[in-house]
Amino acid sequence: MRVTIIGAAGMIGRKLAERIAATGQIGGAPVYAMTLVDVIEPDVAPDFKGKRTLLAADLADAGVATRVIADRPEIIVHLAAIVSGEAEADCAKGYRVNLDGTRALLEAIQAVEGYCPRVIYASSLAVFGAPFPDRIPDTHHLTPLTSYGTQKAMGEMMLNDYSRRGFLDGIGIRFPTICIRPGKPNKAASSFFSGILREPLNGQEAILPVEDTVRHWFASPRAAVGYIEHAATMDTAPLGAQRCMTMPGVTATVAEQIEALRVVAGDAAVALIKRAPDPAVASIVAGWPRNFDTARANAAGFVAETSFQEIIAVYLEDEMGQPAQTGTAPLRP
Amino acid sequence: MRVTIIGAAGMIGRKLAERIAATGQIGGAPVYAMTLVDVIEPDVAPDFKGKRTLLAADLADAGVATRVIADRPEIIVHLAAIVSGEAEADCAKGYRVNLDGTRALLEAIQAVEGYCPRVIYASSLAVFGAPFPDRIPDTHHLTPLTSYGTQKAMGEMMLNDYSRRGFLDGIGIRFPTICIRPGKPNKAASSFFSGILREPLNGQEAILPVEDTVRHWFASPRAAVGYIEHAATMDTAPLGAQRCMTMPGVTATVAEQIEALRVVAGDAAVALIKRAPDPAVASIVAGWPRNFDTARANAAGFVAETSFQEIIAVYLEDEMGQPAQTGTAPLRP
Repeated sequence: MRVTIIGAAGMIGRKLAERIAATGQIGGAPVYAMTLVDVIEPDVAPDFKGKRTLLAADLADAGVATRVIADRPEIIVHLAAIVSGEAEADCAKGYRVNLDGTRALLEAIQAVEGYCPRVIYASSLAVFGAPFPDRIPDTHHLTPLTSYGTQKAMGEMMLNDYSRRGFLDGIGIRFPTICIRPGKPNKAASSFFSGILREPLNGQEAILPVEDTVRHWFASPRAAVGYIEHAATMDTAPLGAQRCMTMPGVTATVAEQIEALRVVAGDAAVALIKRAPDPAVASIVAGWPRNFDTARANAAGFVAETSFQEIIAVYLEDEMGQPAQTGTAPLRP
Repeated sequence: MRVTIIGAAGMIGRKLAERIAATGQIGGAPVYAMTLVDVIEPDVAPDFKGKRTLLAADLADAGVATRVIADRPEIIVHLAAIVSGEAEADCAKGYRVNLDGTRALLEAIQAVEGYCPRVIYASSLAVFGAPFPDRIPDTHHLTPLTSYGTQKAMGEMMLNDYSRRGFLDGIGIRFPTICIRPGKPNKAASSFFSGILREPLNGQEAILPVEDTVRHWFASPRAAVGYIEHAATMDTAPLGAQRCMTMPGVTATVAEQIEALRVVAGDAAVALIKRAPDPAVASIVAGWPRNFDTARANAAGFVAETSFQEIIAVYLEDEMGQPAQTGTAPLRP
């Protein structure tokens, strides 16, 4: 198998490349070549035993998509995007990177006679927009309320169409909010969801800008990589013409996050969370989805954590080097 | 008011231009300039009293969209598209005309500082794909099963996004199947819906290729023009971020169409309908929607006929020069 990861310098792309390097396979299929693409050279997974090709390029630039698929990878993982805030601030850039980049890839694939790779497309919960039911089913209509969500939804539609026409074999993955993100806080409105756990686990104070009744949809970075591994080799026939799905995850309130932290790390850790209500953040988060019915993804075999304690355990194991705890890490037994 | 009609050589574009020429206004607002655009020069509505500009150009070509809005029309009606069959046969052409053309228009508008025209975008029932409920609500998810439907849905999303951002003031109109289309039969799978009425009304035989239990969603050409006239000046604030709607229409089976024909034109007309089942047409039509709940469009003030007899009466008046019959033409009292 040849695997190409576009957006390999990002958090999930890097973890996926490292996982492939560590196991020598993806979704049970041996991987002998990996092309890693990003706008900066993604020098990740240096220990990969197979052929590793690094490419610094912008998918939306003329000719880049054709170069990216030059070795006819059987599996293409398209993670490259600019995020919600940037797509809102710079409209043209958002459409260029998130829509044109995706389209360039799909069209480059279509242009190669007899080539029909598996294309795994990173989509987002942002394809949904309020008002929605408390539990959003797979059949809920897409009414994005950001340019980012619009661009992701347009990409989903094109992926469906190109799959239906047999130009490629696409799967669109709507990722939950990834938690606990390793590293530093960032300026995303969602940053606190990781911060209120990560910082206390590292003995540092964290700011909680919203009420602890706020509910959202989560999975670990490990689960995120697991979705892609599963999507790489699963049978797509049962998906029919609708190739995009919300991934399974854990619905939790901030209060439930904090209680999970208390179980794992005690009251001292919880005491490091400082409440500092920020109406701006609260207002953004109020428009976010809370819970999903992921029947299609479940039936297709996608899995995630089933409790917030598990999500924290994954962080302790994967980022802090703690040994696996019984019953907490079902994704990598 | 300056009005620009893109796709002015098509059936609806031509009727709209003629209507504006005849009344001197659109949606109650006086029209003093009309720019008519199509890939062939749309020499229609020659009697228009205001300034009439004809432009033969392809919206997807570089620079055309900028020329189309050069006089800063307050109202832009974008009807230009290639149809379903052609978009399926020529994938690249479909994306170019139906998606790139639309996007070029929206981006050209965005590029003009302080300009925020009303943009009326012709969408389609093809944004919906089976399986669907017998009566499709406005909240039904878009799962197009053709490239044409995909391109129209992508255009809807971009129209919503650009409206939300304040670049333009968009309304997306999902037209019912227009019946009775004037003129000759064409190769569209839907052609017979008009043919089985139009040909008998003109004393000619017509072929019915499907069972008469087939049900579909219809409105007259006059209603189609009426949607656009209403959209031109209506208040868009109540629409919020979701600017695209299925238009009201008449749900009818083929049997109901035929009974309406019998009431209007008698048994002799009905006897001109010859049954010649065509499994290919039957199979295509089986995947089409049957009925809609158009609550949003109704609330927004859009209207259509309420019976098939009315739809036939509109044809008799508008295409065969018969006088209006009491109670049959509510759209133009």
